[in-house]
Amino acid sequence: MSARIEFFYDIASPYSFLAALQIPRLQALAEVEWRPFLIGGVFKASGNVMPAANPAKGQYMFKDLKRLFAYHGEPFRFPSRFPINSLLAMRCLTALPPEQRPEATLTLYRAYWGGADRDLADPAVLAELLGAEVVARASDEAVKAELKATTEDAATRGAFGAPTFFVGKDMYFGEDRVFLIEHALQQAG
Amino acid sequence: MSARIEFFYDIASPYSFLAALQIPRLQALAEVEWRPFLIGGVFKASGNVMPAANPAKGQYMFKDLKRLFAYHGEPFRFPSRFPINSLLAMRCLTALPPEQRPEATLTLYRAYWGGADRDLADPAVLAELLGAEVVARASDEAVKAELKATTEDAATRGAFGAPTFFVGKDMYFGEDRVFLIEHALQQAG
Repeated sequence: MSARIEFFYDIASPYSFLAALQIPRLQALAEVEWRPFLIGGVFKASGNVMPAANPAKGQYMFKDLKRLFAYHGEPFRFPSRFPINSLLAMRCLTALPPEQRPEATLTLYRAYWGGADRDLADPAVLAELLGAEVVARASDEAVKAELKATTEDAATRGAFGAPTFFVGKDMYFGEDRVFLIEHALQQAG
Repeated sequence: MSARIEFFYDIASPYSFLAALQIPRLQALAEVEWRPFLIGGVFKASGNVMPAANPAKGQYMFKDLKRLFAYHGEPFRFPSRFPINSLLAMRCLTALPPEQRPEATLTLYRAYWGGADRDLADPAVLAELLGAEVVARASDEAVKAELKATTEDAATRGAFGAPTFFVGKDMYFGEDRVFLIEHALQQAG
């Protein structure tokens, strides 16, 4: 089982949360590397904008998310602070060793999108959720540089939003393409 | 079985072709009304643009379509004339009685997207594929008005692209949401 999947996500992206919930399906077929990045960075690099920038799309997106979260059996409530500055939160996730990222990521997703409406731009909230030591490490220059490099890596390889997956050189965009990744790995396997 | 689904599509939209291929799954649960409309009209009304307007998205879309058509076992080749002016083709589909639309629609989709690369803006090509009498009727004022009204109906109800489905008042966007329509109808049934 040599296949490796890179999963690029930002806690500001609810569709990335939906993707995170489906990672166990992919882990049955490949190794998954959780790569926290900045969705704003790939928007900027690609010239893309968030879907909610268009009013008709934004209104629909709200319903779409409600339906998808209900389908996956995961509580969902649109947060009062949106869009949120996710920079510090993403630095915290970057500061964690890879094996601790999945659980910490889901903790942040649930705190922001799951109804508790926590302010993930607030260092005190992040310290409560992830530990004060992680928030302290988030300011290390090496951590800042790693988050920047991860975002640039995704943008250079063609990412224009989140979630973005890479299976080797093959890019997949959107939580609604997890089935295609599964299909490709099953064909290859 | 009283549920009714409206399916809004344009032959210029490859994702609508993918939706059309999945309609049999929905017909097992509801009556489906095929409603040819103009994707350009709902783009204009909503301020939305086609995905390929962004270079990074356009490049990805090409791969995404190849994967999705392969998944559905349907031949696909990107046409040399794209985007195409679909006005006359959509008037022809509007001119047909509802029960003849599904087959005629798939004929046009396959002629344009399936590798034959036919020019669906050419009246002679449309006459060959659908019959000269249909192309003649496409110029009736009533047919022109009906296509316009269908497009306006979709735009007024919130459509911003294609394919767009309505189940009563509930709008669904994208061929990748057919499973959510199925899920909703199964829950309701």
